[in-house]
Formats: sequence, structure tokens, C-alpha cells
Amino acid sequence: MKKTKELRNLINSKKLEFIMEAHNGLSAKIVEEAGFRGIWASGLSISAAMGVRDNNEASWTQVLDVLEFMSDATSIPILLDGDTGYGNFNNARRLVKKLEQRNIAGVCVEDKQFPKMNSFLNGQLQPMADIEEFCGKIRAMKDAQTDDDFIVVARVEAFITGRGLGEALRRAEAYRKAGADAVLIHSKRPDIMEIESFMKEWAGRLPVVIVPTKYYLTPTDKLRELGISLVIWANHNLRSSIQAMKQISRRIYQDESLVQIEKDVATLEEVFRLQGAEELEAAEQRYLPASQCDSNEEI
Amino acid sequence: MKKTKELRNLINSKKLEFIMEAHNGLSAKIVEEAGFRGIWASGLSISAAMGVRDNNEASWTQVLDVLEFMSDATSIPILLDGDTGYGNFNNARRLVKKLEQRNIAGVCVEDKQFPKMNSFLNGQLQPMADIEEFCGKIRAMKDAQTDDDFIVVARVEAFITGRGLGEALRRAEAYRKAGADAVLIHSKRPDIMEIESFMKEWAGRLPVVIVPTKYYLTPTDKLRELGISLVIWANHNLRSSIQAMKQISRRIYQDESLVQIEKDVATLEEVFRLQGAEELEAAEQRYLPASQCDSNEEI
Amino acid sequence: MKKTKELRNLINSKKLEFIMEAHNGLSAKIVEEAGFRGIWASGLSISAAMGVRDNNEASWTQVLDVLEFMSDATSIPILLDGDTGYGNFNNARRLVKKLEQRNIAGVCVEDKQFPKMNSFLNGQLQPMADIEEFCGKIRAMKDAQTDDDFIVVARVEAFITGRGLGEALRRAEAYRKAGADAVLIHSKRPDIMEIESFMKEWAGRLPVVIVPTKYYLTPTDKLRELGISLVIWANHNLRSSIQAMKQISRRIYQDESLVQIEKDVATLEEVFRLQGAEELEAAEQRYLPASQCDSNEEI
Amino acid sequence: MKKTKELRNLINSKKLEFIMEAHNGLSAKIVEEAGFRGIWASGLSISAAMGVRDNNEASWTQVLDVLEFMSDATSIPILLDGDTGYGNFNNARRLVKKLEQRNIAGVCVEDKQFPKMNSFLNGQLQPMADIEEFCGKIRAMKDAQTDDDFIVVARVEAFITGRGLGEALRRAEAYRKAGADAVLIHSKRPDIMEIESFMKEWAGRLPVVIVPTKYYLTPTDKLRELGISLVIWANHNLRSSIQAMKQISRRIYQDESLVQIEKDVATLEEVFRLQGAEELEAAEQRYLPASQCDSNEEI
Repeated sequence: MKKTKELRNLINSKKLEFIMEAHNGLSAKIVEEAGFRGIWASGLSISAAMGVRDNNEASWTQVLDVLEFMSDATSIPILLDGDTGYGNFNNARRLVKKLEQRNIAGVCVEDKQFPKMNSFLNGQLQPMADIEEFCGKIRAMKDAQTDDDFIVVARVEAFITGRGLGEALRRAEAYRKAGADAVLIHSKRPDIMEIESFMKEWAGRLPVVIVPTKYYLTPTDKLRELGISLVIWANHNLRSSIQAMKQISRRIYQDESLVQIEKDVATLEEVFRLQGAEELEAAEQRYLPASQCDSNEEI
Repeated sequence: MKKTKELRNLINSKKLEFIMEAHNGLSAKIVEEAGFRGIWASGLSISAAMGVRDNNEASWTQVLDVLEFMSDATSIPILLDGDTGYGNFNNARRLVKKLEQRNIAGVCVEDKQFPKMNSFLNGQLQPMADIEEFCGKIRAMKDAQTDDDFIVVARVEAFITGRGLGEALRRAEAYRKAGADAVLIHSKRPDIMEIESFMKEWAGRLPVVIVPTKYYLTPTDKLRELGISLVIWANHNLRSSIQAMKQISRRIYQDESLVQIEKDVATLEEVFRLQGAEELEAAEQRYLPASQCDSNEEI
Repeated sequence: MKKTKELRNLINSKKLEFIMEAHNGLSAKIVEEAGFRGIWASGLSISAAMGVRDNNEASWTQVLDVLEFMSDATSIPILLDGDTGYGNFNNARRLVKKLEQRNIAGVCVEDKQFPKMNSFLNGQLQPMADIEEFCGKIRAMKDAQTDDDFIVVARVEAFITGRGLGEALRRAEAYRKAGADAVLIHSKRPDIMEIESFMKEWAGRLPVVIVPTKYYLTPTDKLRELGISLVIWANHNLRSSIQAMKQISRRIYQDESLVQIEKDVATLEEVFRLQGAEELEAAEQRYLPASQCDSNEEI
Repeated sequence: MKKTKELRNLINSKKLEFIMEAHNGLSAKIVEEAGFRGIWASGLSISAAMGVRDNNEASWTQVLDVLEFMSDATSIPILLDGDTGYGNFNNARRLVKKLEQRNIAGVCVEDKQFPKMNSFLNGQLQPMADIEEFCGKIRAMKDAQTDDDFIVVARVEAFITGRGLGEALRRAEAYRKAGADAVLIHSKRPDIMEIESFMKEWAGRLPVVIVPTKYYLTPTDKLRELGISLVIWANHNLRSSIQAMKQISRRIYQDESLVQIEKDVATLEEVFRLQGAEELEAAEQRYLPASQCDSNEEI
């Protein structure tokens, strides 16, 4: 089945579904092998892996190059965290064409302004996108897609920016009318309150996607009960790899040896397996003159 | 001090030194924070992270883009695992210019042929580069560098390809005469035998670099005793991150919840710290009109 | 119709067909507007436009980025001058997948070795690819394509490297059996002799493509008579633009004024037309809030 | 001399200086060979050559890749037409670091908003950047440069957007105080009126750069008299190449032959010369085993 169709089915399915963050071809493949039916290409994770900030410091084509490796390495659909669409409606519709070429199944755009701003300066309200302007962006994106099943998710930042339920509902409804396939309601509260208040008023007008990074203590059954369609585990592969690499680097630095840590890391054979070395071995047998099939170790 | 000079000092220092693998800007920063004085930009790790094979499936400029992020994210020198130089002498000398522009301190090239071949087909000898041709490549690279301290390490694959000590010594000496700053003697034996036999005959004509991935059980003091200059821990950040991501993805898939794993991953705050969010906060205060300093959450 | 199908039709058509060189999105659009039914993405022209040599100094992904712009800017099929496939069978089959993603209709690969060598050192024979190895490459490329109509042209360098008719025929037949969709017989003679001798023996076993850069004085009817399928005008947009830019730069430098040359260059309006400015104007009306539709000049 | 210092000297020189547009490595080399002392990397020309619009459809890193080829191919300084800096102060200061790595001598940023808008929708005023915000961007860029001679030119769009002399002067003075090395006063009038009115009030507080694309009939001596520092011939290599390629493509299409046009295009030998083929020939003699120096034709 087409990846776009698979993502559409996930979002429209009656039961609660889950997708998991990846930030490169390797983590994407690990997500697929874990059993997930979809991948969240996180803007935060991709930028952090590069070593830059999640403020559009990497260009949109640098993100696209990462996505191409992720898509080539996997067979399940990828939903891109597309920030604001990297500019206005024209940048956003151009992005859709580029994503389709790379077999990315969908993109989520948020109603803020380019470039994204830092998170920690307290106090002031962050400016949101003008509703009319953001609706035009959604319409442009939907008009640009050539595959009817390509997904555009509209991310509502009303709660994040302290604007409350009324604004969240007004925007969600406007984005629905503009053609969004789903809405992502975002909240940074440690509890489910904002999401719950939204779900009660929203009454299932479109599938709802959430990112429970901050309210992770909420029982998953509660999310089912509220009628959520899709949960995004948004950055945990990145965060687990940071934890692991910090520990292993520190230990190897202190030990000046691998003896103690060898058992704690994946084997070289596992690395080769994840890279698909076997297929190439077989291909060398099939396509190379016998004289050129040879052996070496990449270590 | 210039990164090139720092790498030169590492290689020429009387005591045994260590550098650690990284494959993107994030892991590079982690290596620096662990205390290491240098970074090994591993071809295997960079390709595996992308989700492709270590057979020059990623183009040399795609590798260069990764190196640029790594270099920008760190202040310690980076030594690139440059495969064969990605072609002939002309490709290799062009690579040197591109590495210098990105403040990469040195590159290691191996005496095999482009593209690299898969590792597991047993039996036949893998073809090595013609000695004269490889010496020409080294000369071209040394002539191309504009910074006298830029490092070119010649990697000798004689043991790996089953050719033995005589060939290893003959090649190492030829590469020394061609201008290499150090030789990397590679071995896939589970013990130090090949390396030891080489060190005895080599008698310190040039600094020697090793990669003890397979003979990791050899005590580090033994390496000191043999007069090794630099040890490369070649792929362990990648392998630790694979282990961690496989575990976390599997657990989240099974639990359908973050409750159990939240304590096992780096915090969001740690992600933001590694990205340098603080510097941007301060910069926003300095460069943005007060009206535009605002707050949001990237999650 | 699919671009691949259009290219297949061109190559298989009973009458002599012509395609014209382009080296970026702009020249590709000019070729289409001139009436041509196909575009030759010349390796020489693309590298020369970049300011580098036609010796694989630009990476294969840098060439791919140029092709993507060319394909997006046009609706007629593009045949890529793919050098040797940028490595072995594995690089070549990977190239095919990347070309299909970017809607490139076909690729021509030549039976030489990576990287390409400079043209002017006289005397020695240039090494050609091993026939068996090159046939394996063709088979790998044909197996890799997902669109049955994607075209692989096998370029025979036997005449170029001074090996004569027998070798040319032996290789062409081997490549045909390996699955090539057409053969490109290359000659650097100022006359048609080599091509003519080949055509007589070949007897139409596969469509034949030629590049009459050196024997351009041969009447086109002669090419029809010989049964050639496709003629490539291989580098003339590049060469005309060099002539024009050298003249205009020299004149403006001397005049220190535009008065004399304004009439000799395309108007700004023509530049905007070629960029498709009109479509964006209309799109701004459709997708932007009225308040944001505005006017400026890019000059 | 450093390219940055050369550009600084051009801008500060007492006499009127001229730089010429280029859009890739080839045109950049042609500009240098014509005698010009500097190159204008035009955003319009680079986007048009790619086949996209001058509305930030190409990403800033795609532009950077073009600049790298231009810089590597030439020895005279390049001034980049940097649009708005591709985002806010943070994107703009990041750009400065990337330009310095690639040996670009300076950048011109304009006081409009990202992304750039289309030019022809008549009527409304185009929004300009907030003065305070744009001054913060200039300060961030100047603080980011590591080479004191790197140039930041502030482009004033007050006349272009119909705001008149007062606004132009107010902005130019604010940008001067913020640290700009020069101001570019832009006008789309067919005469010199706006520029002249500005120069009289400005009284040489900073060097002034102009782009006389629209008022090209103004005698160059008039520009000297007004005290202009630098004139940019902004897009004429692109426009001459369009004219030439349209003609040659049409003629070859109609003639189905090269006979008539061969004399009108640069020779292949000239293409090879511009690519620097000779240096590679010599290098092959120096670095390749005799057995591998060979001959072929790239045609």
C-alpha cells in the first residue's frame, strides 16, 4: 500500500494509534523494526542531531536530505514536523512537492511565524500566524499535492502561547475548513486539562493528534476515552541516544579501554545488518565478475 | 590553538593518546564534553547513521555536510575517516581543500580502491591500491593543503587483506616517503600479534595510529609499551545509541506509554543545553526589539 | 504521458530524433520552449557551469541537485549523461533510484573507469571498463528501475580509445544482451567513418544514439540514411552562453555603462517570465490575505 | 591580499568602482577575466539560473553551494545579494559564518521581510522590516564576523516601496549607526532623481552602492559627480546568456544541424580552458603512475 494511504488509515482509524520519533535513516529503521506503523520526523530531534538549534538554523533542504535517507531506509509512512512550512504559502506548497518526490506521507505545519524562536524567555506572548494567512497556506499545500492521500496536519499553538480554548477551537475549525486532514492540539501543561477541554467541544470534527511529552503521566486509556486519534512519541529516540552516548563516552574516556563496555553496545554485526549489508553481498555475487567479489572489514 | 595544530600535537605527543568516534554534530559535542581531545569522524558510523552502507553509497559531499555540522559544534580537532579519498589523487586533493574550508584538522586515507566493497564474502583477496598510485595520492594531498599543520594519515590495509608483514612494512615506508604524517596499521585479528610484529620492525619511523575494535581485550599498557601514538575508539557512540534506541523504541511500543521510560532518557532541558539554546536566548535579548522576545516550547 | 515513456518513444521512433543540451533549470526550459522533445543533461556542461572539471570533481549528489531543478522546470524528458555511473554497479543502481525519484527519464553510462580522466594527454590508450563488469552494471541498473520505461543507454567508448570496430561491436552486443535500451556509439573523428562502419555491421539490433560534436559537418540526411535513432546536440547552449557572457562582460567593463548593450540582452520581463513569476502573482491573489499582496522590484 | 580586504578597498576607494553579476562558477570566472575587480552574486540571477523564482524558493544552503563553486573558481572578491539574510538576526549571523568559511567577501541585506514577494502586483505598499529589528540584524552580523574586513552592506528599500527620501535617510542613518559598512540605495525610477536627492542629503556619511538597472541611461560621469562609491551591473551576464541560448536552441532546432552555428559558439577548447583542464593534465603527470596517464574526449 502507498505510504500516504497507510498514514491516512492510521489517522482515520477508530482505535488510538501511535507513531515514534526518528531523526535519521538509522533511527527510522529502528522505529520500524520495533513494530510502529509510522514515523515522526521531529524538527527538534533532527536539528539536535545535527548539533544546531530548533530555530530553522538548518535549511529546509538540509532537513529534506535527512528525510530522503529516512524514507529510503524504511517502508512505513513518515509524518514530517514541518515547523511553519519554512516561510509563507509558497514555501509550504513547494515543500509538499519535494516531500512527495521523496515518498514522505505527510507534513504537520504549525500556526506560528518563521523563524521559530527560542523557548525559554519567559513572559511575553509569542506571536501566532494570522488565521487567514495560515488558512491560505493550508489551502496552497492541499492544492499542491498530486497524491490525494498526502496528509496535511494543522498544528494549533493556541494553548502553547497562552491563548486558551476559544482561540484553539476557532483556529482548529478554520483550519478544518481550509482543508486540513487532521489537527494537532499542542499543550505544555503537565496534565491533560487543556486537551480534554478541547476534545469535549471539538466533538470529532476532524481526527486529533497529540504530543504528550509534558503530560506523559496521563494514562493512555484516558486518551482513548477522549477520542484522540494519534499519539506522537516525539523525541525519545534522540533522548535515549544522548543518555547512552554520554555514558559510553565518559566510561571509555575514564577506562582508556573497551573491555568493560563492549557488552553494552550493539555488535558490529548488528550495525552491518541494520545497514543491509547482506543484500549487497548477494548483489555482488549477482552483478560483479567473480574475480571482484572480495572481503574486507570496515571497523 | 588551531585545530590542525592540536591534532598534530596529539599524534606527535610522547604519550599514548585517544580519540573517539562521532557521526553527527550531537555526538561530536558529547565526545568533547567527555574530555576527549580529538574526534574520529567514522565513515562506518556516518553511513550507518544515514541508513546506508559503508560502500560509498552516500556521496563525499553528503559526508562533507555532516562534517561541517560536527566542526561547527565543537572546538577540538576532527580526523576524518576518508576511505580512499573518494576517487583518485584529484578527488583526494579536492577533498583536502574542502576539509580545510570546514576546519577539519586531518584525514585518513586507505590503500584500497573506490568504491569500498562489502566485508563478508569470504575467501578472495581484496584488491589494494597500486603503491605508486597511492603514493601519488598522498603527495597530491600534501601539496594541496594550505595549512602546514593539516594531517594526512595513510592507512595500511595489508594485514586486513591477508598480505602480511612484509607488504605492510613496504607500504608504510613508501607512504612515509610520500609525505604521510602518520600511518594507521589496521588489523582484524582478535589479538595484537600483527600490530606487535609491525611495531617491532617499524621502529618509530612515523607515529602509528591503531583501531583496536577487534583486539579490544589487549591491555592499554601493552599499546603504550609498543609505542603506539594514537588509539581510535572507532564506532562505539554509534553502537551505544543503537542499543539504546532499540530498547526504548521496543519498550514504548509495548507499554504504549512513556511513564516507565521517562527516567531513562536525557531530559528536554539537556537536549536544549546541548543545542546551545542559552546562547540564543541571550542573543535574542541583545539583537531583537523587546517586543519580539517571546516564549514557546519545542516539544 | 510519463516522461520515461516519452523518451522511450523518441528512442524507438522510426524517424531521426534530436535532443539538446542543458545544464541548469533555465537552459532546460529554453530547450523545451525551442521545440525540442527531450533534454541532454550534459556532464561536461554541468561541470563547466559549476566552474569545475569534467572529471567527477562535483559529487554525484551535486549533479543530482542540478537535475532536480531541471526536471522541475520542464515537462519534456531528460536523459542524463551519467559518466560511469559514479562508481560500480552499486553506485549505478543507487543512481537509478535517485533519478526516478526526481522524474529523470533515463541515464547514459559509459564503459570507462571512475573517475574520468583528462582528455588531452596524448598517446596512451585509456583503460576501458571490463566488459563483464560493465554488463553487470547494466543489469543492476535495469533491475533497480521501478518504472519499466526508464531508459538505460550504454555508451561505447571503443572508437574514442582507439580500439576499433571489432571491439565496438563486441561491446555493443554484450551491452544489448545485458539489457541496455540503446547504445551510444561515440567517435571523435571529424568524419562519419567510424559511425558508418558500425551501423553497417550493427544492423539495427538496438537503437543507436550519436553525439556529432566533432563530425558536425556530416549532413543530417546521411545520419537518417544510416538509420541513427537519436542525435544529441551535446554542449551548444553552454558554449553559446560562454560566447555571450564573455562579450557582454568585456563590453560593460570597457564602456563602464549599459547604454550600448541593453538592447542585446533579454529583458528583465523575460527573466521573470522564464521564472514563472505570473503563476506566483496569481497564487498570491488566491492564497494570501489581501493585506499581504504587495509590490516590489527584484533588480 | 585577502578577498575581504580587496572588497573593502573597492568600497572605500575615492574613485567610482564597478562589480559585475555572476550566477555560477563559470560566469564568475568570466567576470574576473573581463577585468572586473569584484563579483556580484545576484539572488535574481542565481534563482533564475536554477529555474526557480527570486522568492526564496531555493534554500539558503542551495545558494551557499553555488557561492562555494563561484569562490573556488575565482580570485577576486564576491559580494552576495543576501536578500533579507534568509530570516531573522540569527539566520543572518549564521549566514555570515558560512560565507566566511567559503571565502565570500561580503553580503548585502535588504530591509524587507522573509520570504521575498512577487514584484508585479500593483498598488499596495510592500511591508518593510521594522527599523529596530533590522538594526539588530546588522549588529548581529557584524558581531558574528571573525575577519574584521568582512563587509555588510545595508540595502535601503524605502524608494522601492514608495516611502520617499525622509524614510530612506532615516533608515540609512540607523543602519550606519548599527555598523553597516556601506548602504545600497535602491531605486526603480528610469531616472537618477531619487538617488540624487539622497546623495545630496547623505553627504558621504558612508560609502553608497547603487544598482542602475532601471536608470541605466544616466551617464556614468553623473554617478561620479554624485559621489557614488560602487556600481553593480546586476544581472547582465544572465540576461545575455538567455538571449544567446534562446537563439542557438531555436536555430539548431530549425536547422537540425550544427553547421551554421558552430562559428557562433565558444570552442570546446575554450570550455576546457575555462575549466582549468591544463592544470589537471600537469597534475596527472606529477601524481599518476605513467601507466595511468591517458587520453579521452569529453564531448
